[in-house]
Amino acid sequence: MNDKPLILVTNDDGITAPGIRELISIMNEIGDVIVVAPDSPQSGMGHAITVNSTLFCNPVNVDDGPQLEYSCSGTPADCVKMAVSEILNKKPDLCVSGINHGSNSSINVIYSGTMSAAVEAGIEGVPAIGFSLLDYNWDADFRPSREFVKKITLSVLENKLPEGVVLNVNIPKAKKEAIKGIKICRQAHGIWKEDFDKRTNPLGKDYYWLSGKFVNLDHGEDTDIWALENDYISVVPVQFDLTAHHYMHKLNNWGL
Amino acid sequence: MNDKPLILVTNDDGITAPGIRELISIMNEIGDVIVVAPDSPQSGMGHAITVNSTLFCNPVNVDDGPQLEYSCSGTPADCVKMAVSEILNKKPDLCVSGINHGSNSSINVIYSGTMSAAVEAGIEGVPAIGFSLLDYNWDADFRPSREFVKKITLSVLENKLPEGVVLNVNIPKAKKEAIKGIKICRQAHGIWKEDFDKRTNPLGKDYYWLSGKFVNLDHGEDTDIWALENDYISVVPVQFDLTAHHYMHKLNNWGL
Repeated sequence: MNDKPLILVTNDDGITAPGIRELISIMNEIGDVIVVAPDSPQSGMGHAITVNSTLFCNPVNVDDGPQLEYSCSGTPADCVKMAVSEILNKKPDLCVSGINHGSNSSINVIYSGTMSAAVEAGIEGVPAIGFSLLDYNWDADFRPSREFVKKITLSVLENKLPEGVVLNVNIPKAKKEAIKGIKICRQAHGIWKEDFDKRTNPLGKDYYWLSGKFVNLDHGEDTDIWALENDYISVVPVQFDLTAHHYMHKLNNWGL
Repeated sequence: MNDKPLILVTNDDGITAPGIRELISIMNEIGDVIVVAPDSPQSGMGHAITVNSTLFCNPVNVDDGPQLEYSCSGTPADCVKMAVSEILNKKPDLCVSGINHGSNSSINVIYSGTMSAAVEAGIEGVPAIGFSLLDYNWDADFRPSREFVKKITLSVLENKLPEGVVLNVNIPKAKKEAIKGIKICRQAHGIWKEDFDKRTNPLGKDYYWLSGKFVNLDHGEDTDIWALENDYISVVPVQFDLTAHHYMHKLNNWGL
């Protein structure tokens, strides 16, 4: 009898990204691993799903690890749907997404393909964690993350997560000995100040690149941004009941 | 002096969809209208933003109304960013998104481009409402919605919304006289049961269409699904602080 947990691994940077390769190698130490991940980068895809075009999904071998892998033409959320209802045909014991190259703290959770995969798993009743490292470089050093990713994963398998809650884990870019520990946090109130870069193409037509600067408007010491700035790993429990329950009473008084 | 509110209109079905044309015509009765909407359908785009490719955004005339209109190659969230920081260069007084052809009740709020536009406006500090009609047909009858859309819009302009809250409004497919009124609701707990349709292309390669069936797991009479099934218009206040505050204490006891 095999009592190793079945772990689904996905991401938004694409199946060959160093971050997911690291995550797969960590998960191989914990359970039986199946990878269903996008065949190309899907950063900023939020919770997009593919409703108006076709999806391709094929078995691949990316390295010589024991995991089974599928490369999928869709978004991170598509990958989770495809894994659960088509490839596995059952719920895995856990879904981990990442390790993302770059932060998904604060409001970035909304735009994040990494976190949308974890949320999609949560919606389907699968315990889920999104992992991100605050380093956008393709050759980011994921080694300091290993021990913490493993610890958090084992803790989720042991403690279980309640229905409707997944974890958003962000890891500071720091040497292992500089990381002070793990902090449970709330999502900091921050926004992106956009600055569209307007250019003209060779045919004389204007076009834009979306760029911007993240602005933290929230200096609470219980936030993910504070934790990360102070060399802690941040863990935010994330829900997908978006109801602003605190405002329902007031809204009832509007007399609509 | 012009004291008419400046209203930004967008959607996810594309700038020529009947739903947005109806919404523009309603908003023209309330304020000065600027439209920045996708040049093609963006259903299911969730909160995707365009980070890895260029954006085009051009003035267009779709009908002979007084509104200014821009057609944009991006997602609904891109359109709001583009409107606020590039076209208007200031915050509008209100952003309305829709009227969507199809429901955005329950978990659909997560996948919805219509609602992601409203949420993006909320993040940028603009009061916002997403409107959806429970009729996927292109020639859906939006006329019964008019009075209610106007009433809710005027109410938001009068009462203001607090920071961090936008409204998700869904309208049943019913004759005007059959609509019983407006109900403030919470998001029902429902999921999509996927059923991928596997086919083979002319080259012998397998591909999939994502399809599925919505399953309501929540029969509370305070939910949006209940309201809609009982011919009420549902209004759910939606937040984008995704922190599961109720679970932070327990998570702190995991000893991470």
